[in-house]
Amino acid sequence: MINVTVWGEYLHEKSNPAVAAIYPDGMHKCIAGFLSECDDLCVRTATLEEPDHGLTDEVLDNTDVLIWWGHAAHGRVRDDIVQKIYDRVLRGMGLIALHSAHKSKIFMKLMGTSCSLRWRDGAREHLWCVNPNHPIAKGVPADFRLDNEEMYGEYFDIPKPDDVIYLGWFNGGEVFRSGCTFTRGYGKIFYFQPGHETFTSYKNENVQKIIKNAVHFLYNEEKHGELICPNPAPVE
Amino acid sequence: MINVTVWGEYLHEKSNPAVAAIYPDGMHKCIAGFLSECDDLCVRTATLEEPDHGLTDEVLDNTDVLIWWGHAAHGRVRDDIVQKIYDRVLRGMGLIALHSAHKSKIFMKLMGTSCSLRWRDGAREHLWCVNPNHPIAKGVPADFRLDNEEMYGEYFDIPKPDDVIYLGWFNGGEVFRSGCTFTRGYGKIFYFQPGHETFTSYKNENVQKIIKNAVHFLYNEEKHGELICPNPAPVE
Amino acid sequence: MINVTVWGEYLHEKSNPAVAAIYPDGMHKCIAGFLSECDDLCVRTATLEEPDHGLTDEVLDNTDVLIWWGHAAHGRVRDDIVQKIYDRVLRGMGLIALHSAHKSKIFMKLMGTSCSLRWRDGAREHLWCVNPNHPIAKGVPADFRLDNEEMYGEYFDIPKPDDVIYLGWFNGGEVFRSGCTFTRGYGKIFYFQPGHETFTSYKNENVQKIIKNAVHFLYNEEKHGELICPNPAPVE
Amino acid sequence: MINVTVWGEYLHEKSNPAVAAIYPDGMHKCIAGFLSECDDLCVRTATLEEPDHGLTDEVLDNTDVLIWWGHAAHGRVRDDIVQKIYDRVLRGMGLIALHSAHKSKIFMKLMGTSCSLRWRDGAREHLWCVNPNHPIAKGVPADFRLDNEEMYGEYFDIPKPDDVIYLGWFNGGEVFRSGCTFTRGYGKIFYFQPGHETFTSYKNENVQKIIKNAVHFLYNEEKHGELICPNPAPVE
Repeated sequence: MINVTVWGEYLHEKSNPAVAAIYPDGMHKCIAGFLSECDDLCVRTATLEEPDHGLTDEVLDNTDVLIWWGHAAHGRVRDDIVQKIYDRVLRGMGLIALHSAHKSKIFMKLMGTSCSLRWRDGAREHLWCVNPNHPIAKGVPADFRLDNEEMYGEYFDIPKPDDVIYLGWFNGGEVFRSGCTFTRGYGKIFYFQPGHETFTSYKNENVQKIIKNAVHFLYNEEKHGELICPNPAPVE
Repeated sequence: MINVTVWGEYLHEKSNPAVAAIYPDGMHKCIAGFLSECDDLCVRTATLEEPDHGLTDEVLDNTDVLIWWGHAAHGRVRDDIVQKIYDRVLRGMGLIALHSAHKSKIFMKLMGTSCSLRWRDGAREHLWCVNPNHPIAKGVPADFRLDNEEMYGEYFDIPKPDDVIYLGWFNGGEVFRSGCTFTRGYGKIFYFQPGHETFTSYKNENVQKIIKNAVHFLYNEEKHGELICPNPAPVE
Repeated sequence: MINVTVWGEYLHEKSNPAVAAIYPDGMHKCIAGFLSECDDLCVRTATLEEPDHGLTDEVLDNTDVLIWWGHAAHGRVRDDIVQKIYDRVLRGMGLIALHSAHKSKIFMKLMGTSCSLRWRDGAREHLWCVNPNHPIAKGVPADFRLDNEEMYGEYFDIPKPDDVIYLGWFNGGEVFRSGCTFTRGYGKIFYFQPGHETFTSYKNENVQKIIKNAVHFLYNEEKHGELICPNPAPVE
Repeated sequence: MINVTVWGEYLHEKSNPAVAAIYPDGMHKCIAGFLSECDDLCVRTATLEEPDHGLTDEVLDNTDVLIWWGHAAHGRVRDDIVQKIYDRVLRGMGLIALHSAHKSKIFMKLMGTSCSLRWRDGAREHLWCVNPNHPIAKGVPADFRLDNEEMYGEYFDIPKPDDVIYLGWFNGGEVFRSGCTFTRGYGKIFYFQPGHETFTSYKNENVQKIIKNAVHFLYNEEKHGELICPNPAPVE
């Protein structure tokens, strides 16, 4: 079994009726819901306003893949918990950063860049696969359409990804590296652009399939201790 | 001085009045013309129907960067001349493959893939820079528009580029890795998508600037002999 | 089941008693033997001197991963068969090029470079993993030693790999990118340096584990038709 | 002119006579000295125990490339100054991290990984170029030897570099990615392994040539403001 923790900021859903109408139990519950369709996934959720943001050592030590959705309150996430997540990614925990998580503390810390981009609310997007034999693209059409998404456009200030798997086309004339993987230490990371809170992207079957694939791709059976190699004996 | 040879297929211009109206002396002469504005470039041209396609050993031995535009007659390019170009790229000659040169023998041979893509005549394109500190993008706006271009869309079957510098957005909903670099042996390669024969792309100042930059980026002062290392002495 | 075909040149074993003493049935049979320990692999072999080098359309159409060992007779491999292998790699067949297969027609054609390197017979090698969470490295120690191998040293004239997984250290002072992956079209490729015919490298458990892992990593469940996208309808 | 600031921790030289004997004015002065041989470089130095570590806003605003050597006192470097350096790298300042600077705050913050490695004092190293047409390797032999260096060995926990230019071989049987480039925002970074304080590596002509080349490669004529793109107008 792969242990997945879906972390949601869970603020918009409580303050904005338009968001609540789409995601009455929160976006994290919607994401946890479709992931639970996979027999090999054991899924739990955590949110900002729980104690320790719901991310105790016990939870993190039993998380193989962490999914992160945040937007309005990146600054309220405690630095000590960010550090704990960071340490675990380097030791092998997978991380999926969704949509506005591009500006989350954990994603920026792992990238080492500003993660800035262009954005504009209310757009139509086509996603195109540019890496068709990547496991994350398995079983997904070569291109698909999201009738309503937030435009995220280049230049996206990230380090060169391991792989760019999806490019996004927006009707305002913009393009975006919408699906990218990175490796940091023993951990793998997937950034995926769809998921503005006022739209239904997480109910799209292709978006769901990509996130399911990503969980499996990011999973490391084995976690690692700290990388300390003090004065090893020569091998010759 | 950097010696540049602009190779043009030079068939459409002689058979299609619409092309001749735009490029009366041929596309190669247009490209050679704007490159000649650079004081450090020494530019000549060559075309398919000249003896040896205009690419004698003397010409190739004195070419630092070769620019290739071909479309209708890839199959008529002689294999022995393709091999000579290939050998020189591996030893340090730069190569710019323009537009439909994605299916030229020399580009395909260097890539090791089918170089297939989607295409459709008659589109509007926006080019976005996704690598703003690459020398090829220097002095070029972050994005610019070509009112008329042929749509080239993903999936573009190329190996992972060294760098993707430009992404293309097309009004039919498509995206494309429109400007990409590759290294093969000691030689560097730039593929650049704009340049359909019935449009005026090579008269666009941004397209011209990018090609000028690319020539300078691809230039290797030093060329190399064949890479043969027979039984070298140990260094220890 | 994953269908694996192990192709061996099978000449040294018949002409050199020292090689025959190590690999009495041929290197290909040794490789096929340890792969057959995996329950999910269906392994067959083919050799140079069989009709069509043992690589009929029927065999190739039923091969998910092709393993290639050649050395003395690269030039005797028929170009039409190389082309057939090439086509299938681009459509999703995996390819493992072992040791001196760096100069095989099929590997060079897929790389688009000279694939030259330094070499010297008779060396001691340490292999170091530089990509510890790559599936090819799973279950293999961080470093291991081969008491006898042929030295292959840099500069190795290959395009930038997708991933460098192993670096080789040689007692003559040389280093080498000994384990590298590439993607061409829908196919994945692994080059792995150990395997000189006069040494016992294919009997080393770590070498065997790496090749087993590579077969699984290169496997594509789905093969693809030719990539032809003629004039697709706009999606907008 | 390219403005270079060479930052040295400058502690070992004051406390260890063996280091002082090699670098009587400090390692930073030695590095600044050979860089000053380049007519197009304007070089200054800064050290840990100067006010603000010698890195005032005025200094940083007038630095195109910052060179960093630190070892014993990474923890004493002020976080606010690290943040200022970080911001400037993202806007286009180059950074060369030398030897034990792999564990400096600024390098780790830009990498997003632990930057751990193996190490052992007292080794012999050969450096091999694996990217012979990279500007950093220009004019440097294909391989060269350092009779005394500290062994730094894999696994080196860094993100995948843009380019690996040098691999290091050590007589204890280890290998290392000794010269690597990275891009973060508009800034380019070069990590280079030689330079243990008790050895004479910065007096080696090849080491000096590589650092000179790196300064020129990392230089960005243009620096950039913060990357903020609030709600840009559509281009279509």
